[in-house]
Amino acid sequence: MEFFNVVSLSRARELLAGFWPPGTETVRVGLLESYGCLLAQGVAAPEDLPPFARATVDGYAVRAADTFGASEALPALLRVTGEVVIGSAPGGTVAPGTAWRIPTGGMLPPGADAVVMVEHTEEIDHELLGVTRPVAPGENVMGRGEDVPAGSPVLPPGRRLRAEDAGVLAALGITEVDVSRRWRVAIVSTGDEIVAPGEKPGRGRVRDVNSCTLYGLVAATGAVPRLCGTVRDDRASLRAVLERACAGGDMVLVSGGSSVGTRDVVLGVAREMGRLLFHGLAVRPGKPTAAVAVDRSLLVVLPGHPVSALVVYLLLVEPLLLYGGYPWAERVAEFPVRAAITRSTRSAPGREDFVRVRVYGAGGRLLADPVLGKSGAIGTMVRSNGLAWIPPEKEGVEAGEEVPVRLLGPVTSDGEFCQPIGPENRTTFRRQNSPSKEG
Amino acid sequence: MEFFNVVSLSRARELLAGFWPPGTETVRVGLLESYGCLLAQGVAAPEDLPPFARATVDGYAVRAADTFGASEALPALLRVTGEVVIGSAPGGTVAPGTAWRIPTGGMLPPGADAVVMVEHTEEIDHELLGVTRPVAPGENVMGRGEDVPAGSPVLPPGRRLRAEDAGVLAALGITEVDVSRRWRVAIVSTGDEIVAPGEKPGRGRVRDVNSCTLYGLVAATGAVPRLCGTVRDDRASLRAVLERACAGGDMVLVSGGSSVGTRDVVLGVAREMGRLLFHGLAVRPGKPTAAVAVDRSLLVVLPGHPVSALVVYLLLVEPLLLYGGYPWAERVAEFPVRAAITRSTRSAPGREDFVRVRVYGAGGRLLADPVLGKSGAIGTMVRSNGLAWIPPEKEGVEAGEEVPVRLLGPVTSDGEFCQPIGPENRTTFRRQNSPSKEG
Repeated sequence: MEFFNVVSLSRARELLAGFWPPGTETVRVGLLESYGCLLAQGVAAPEDLPPFARATVDGYAVRAADTFGASEALPALLRVTGEVVIGSAPGGTVAPGTAWRIPTGGMLPPGADAVVMVEHTEEIDHELLGVTRPVAPGENVMGRGEDVPAGSPVLPPGRRLRAEDAGVLAALGITEVDVSRRWRVAIVSTGDEIVAPGEKPGRGRVRDVNSCTLYGLVAATGAVPRLCGTVRDDRASLRAVLERACAGGDMVLVSGGSSVGTRDVVLGVAREMGRLLFHGLAVRPGKPTAAVAVDRSLLVVLPGHPVSALVVYLLLVEPLLLYGGYPWAERVAEFPVRAAITRSTRSAPGREDFVRVRVYGAGGRLLADPVLGKSGAIGTMVRSNGLAWIPPEKEGVEAGEEVPVRLLGPVTSDGEFCQPIGPENRTTFRRQNSPSKEG
Repeated sequence: MEFFNVVSLSRARELLAGFWPPGTETVRVGLLESYGCLLAQGVAAPEDLPPFARATVDGYAVRAADTFGASEALPALLRVTGEVVIGSAPGGTVAPGTAWRIPTGGMLPPGADAVVMVEHTEEIDHELLGVTRPVAPGENVMGRGEDVPAGSPVLPPGRRLRAEDAGVLAALGITEVDVSRRWRVAIVSTGDEIVAPGEKPGRGRVRDVNSCTLYGLVAATGAVPRLCGTVRDDRASLRAVLERACAGGDMVLVSGGSSVGTRDVVLGVAREMGRLLFHGLAVRPGKPTAAVAVDRSLLVVLPGHPVSALVVYLLLVEPLLLYGGYPWAERVAEFPVRAAITRSTRSAPGREDFVRVRVYGAGGRLLADPVLGKSGAIGTMVRSNGLAWIPPEKEGVEAGEEVPVRLLGPVTSDGEFCQPIGPENRTTFRRQNSPSKEG
C-alpha cells in the first residue's frame, strides 16, 4: 500500500508556483507572433493615444461658446470656412463664429474645442450653418492622450497577450515585445498494458490515450509538447526516459499507470531523481498525483486514468503553462459558470470533487447533467463540456442546486455538441446531424 | 446619410450560416494535427472499448456467487490460484471457490465475473483469501464494450475536435481523421487616416489596430489569416485589393473606416462585387456592419472602430471559424457567466447591447465593472475581460443586477489580470482612466 500525505489543491498549487516558471529567459517577438505569450516586462505607453484631438462623430468643428443657447427655434448661425480631410492636418483655424466640416476620426482644427453632430445642424446654404443644439467644450472630441496618455502603464508584466492587447500595442507603435520563451513540455506514458495508438493491442492491452490528449492540451497553451512514447514499468528504462525528458524539458508529464504497482515504480523513480514537492492530492479524481523538482525541470506524475489525468492537468498544469501561475484567488473565479445540476451527486467532505458535466441551456438557464462513468471510462471525456466543482466542506449537491462550472467546450441549447454516445442515444445522434441542426 | 435596413443579430447569423461554410473540401490529418479541426464525418467506434473486461480496482477476480453472504465476522474463504499480470492475458480460469489477484486495468480471467477490492479481503496465508464483503456480478469490472460499444457513434460530424476527443480516437485506434480544410481569411484595413503599426503616423493619422487584432483572433480559431495591408479610400485600389482578397480567401474581413465617407466607399465597392446579405446590425456597438457574398467568398465589412470591429468579430465571425456556424440557440448558452454589474448602464430597446466589462471574483460572487470609453477609444480593449449582453427588450440594467457575460480572459479576484500588476501601478492606472472619461 502507498502512503499519501495528501495535500489540498491550494497547497499543491502553492508548491508548484514556488517552483515555476523555470528561469527568466526571454525572447523578443514581433506582434504577429506574440499572441498567447507572457510579457516579460510591463508596457507603458511611449506616446499619447490618440496623438491629437479627434472628432468622435461626423459633424462640424466649432468653438463651443458659439453654440451656447442654440435651439431648434433659434439656431446659432456659423460660417463654414473649411473642411477637415481625414488623414490630414487641417490647413487653418476655426475662428470665432465659424465652423469646419469634420469626419469621425478627423483632426480637430486649432481654435475648435468641440464637434456638433451633423444631426444637430442644418446647412442653410453651402457657407452658412445653423446649429440647433449647444455643445459643451470637449463634446464629441477625444482629446490628445485621453484614451491612453503617454507614460501610463498599458499592460502588466506576466500578462498573457490576447489579440486585442496586441492591437493596442500596434496602436502605440510597439511592434516587438519581450516575452517568456515557449516552455518545452515532455510527455511520457507508462504502463505494461499500454501500446501506441497506431498499434493493435494484444490481449490484455489497451492503447495510449494520455499522450494524445496531453499533446493537444499543451500545444493549445502555446508551449511546445514533445512525445516521449510509452514506457514499460521497468525502473531502469523508465529512469533513462525520464532523465532524457527532464534534461530536454521545462516540464515532464508522466501519466503513471492505473495500478498501484505501476504507480509505485513511477513514483519511486521520480523520487530518486529529485525533490518531492507533494504526493497525493485531496481531489477527486486525482488523488495519486505527485510532483517532483528535478534540477530545473518540474516532473508531474499524473494519474493513469485518462479522465483523472485530464482533470489534474486542467487544475494544476494548464494554468502554469497559460499564465505562469494560478491567477484565481477563489474558486468562483476559476469556475465562473453556474449551472443547476440535474442529478444529486455525492462527495466526500474534506476533499474537492470535480464532476464532469454536460452543460446546456434550457429556457434561459443552464443545466448540468453529471456525466458519470466507471473508473477508467473515457467515453465520458467526449460527452462532457464542463467541469463542476464541489467544495471540500460539502457532502454532495442536490438535484437542482447550482454548481460552479468551468466550461471545456461550447454550450448548446440541447447539449447536442456534446451529445451522449452509446447505443440508446443513437437515434438522437442521427437527428443531431440532420440539416435542421442550426435550427 | 446612409440607409440602414438594420437586421437583428439572429437574422444576420441566419444569413451568414446560409452561406457558410465555403464548400465541402476535406483533408485527412493525423491525430496530432487534428486539434481544433472540424470533423468531416461522424465517427463510430470500430471496436469495443475496453476490448476486454477489466478490473477497475486492485483486488481479486472472483465468481460473485462465491462471496454471497460474506461478512467481517464470517468471511468467504477462497483459494488464490493465480495472478493477472497487467498487459497480459490470464493463463487460466477462475474456478468455483477460487480467486486470482488482479491489478487495476488487468484483464478479467475466464470464470470470474467480479472483482473484490483488496480493502475487503484478508490474506489468511499466501494461498487462502478471506473476503469480508460480498460483491455483485459485474462489480468493480468494466465489461467489454461497456465504455464505448463497437458501432456506436462517438463524435458527430462537424465536431470541433478537442484534445480529449482526439484521445478517445487514439483509444479506438483511429489515428487519422477527415476534417474540413483550414479556411483562409484575408484581412484588409481601410481609411485614409490609417498607417501600418511600424510607421510613424503623420499629423492627422493613426496606426492600424484592426489588422493586428483580427490576425490574432483568426489564427486562434485554426483558420489561416493573411494580412492584405491598409488601403486608401479610393474605389479603384480598394476594389483591386478586395478582388484579390476574395479570390484567395474563403472570407475577407474589411474594417471599413470610422467616418461615413470611408464606409460609403467600402460598402459601395463591396456591393458592386457581389450579393448583399445585410447592411446594418441592430447591435451596439456594431451598427455599420455589412456582409456580401462574392462568388464563394464571404466579405464581411466590420465597423472601423477597433472595439466595434472586435465585438462584431466575436459575435458574427468567430463562431463561423470555430464551429462552422452558431452552436447556441439562446444567448444564455453563448453568454454563460452571470455577474452582478456594478454600475447602472443604459441601453436602447429594440437593439442588443454588448458592454465590455471587467469581471472579477469578490467574496464568492462575480462582479462586472462596465469598462466604458468614448467612441473610438481602444484602451478599453485591454482593460476588459468580458462582454456582457443586454437583451433587446431592456432599456438598461441597474447596478447590482446580474448580466449574462461571455469571458474574454481569465477572471481574477481583483480584476488585476486586466490591470497593471502591483499596488503602485494601480494608482497610476486609476489616474490614467480619469473618472470623467469612464463616467
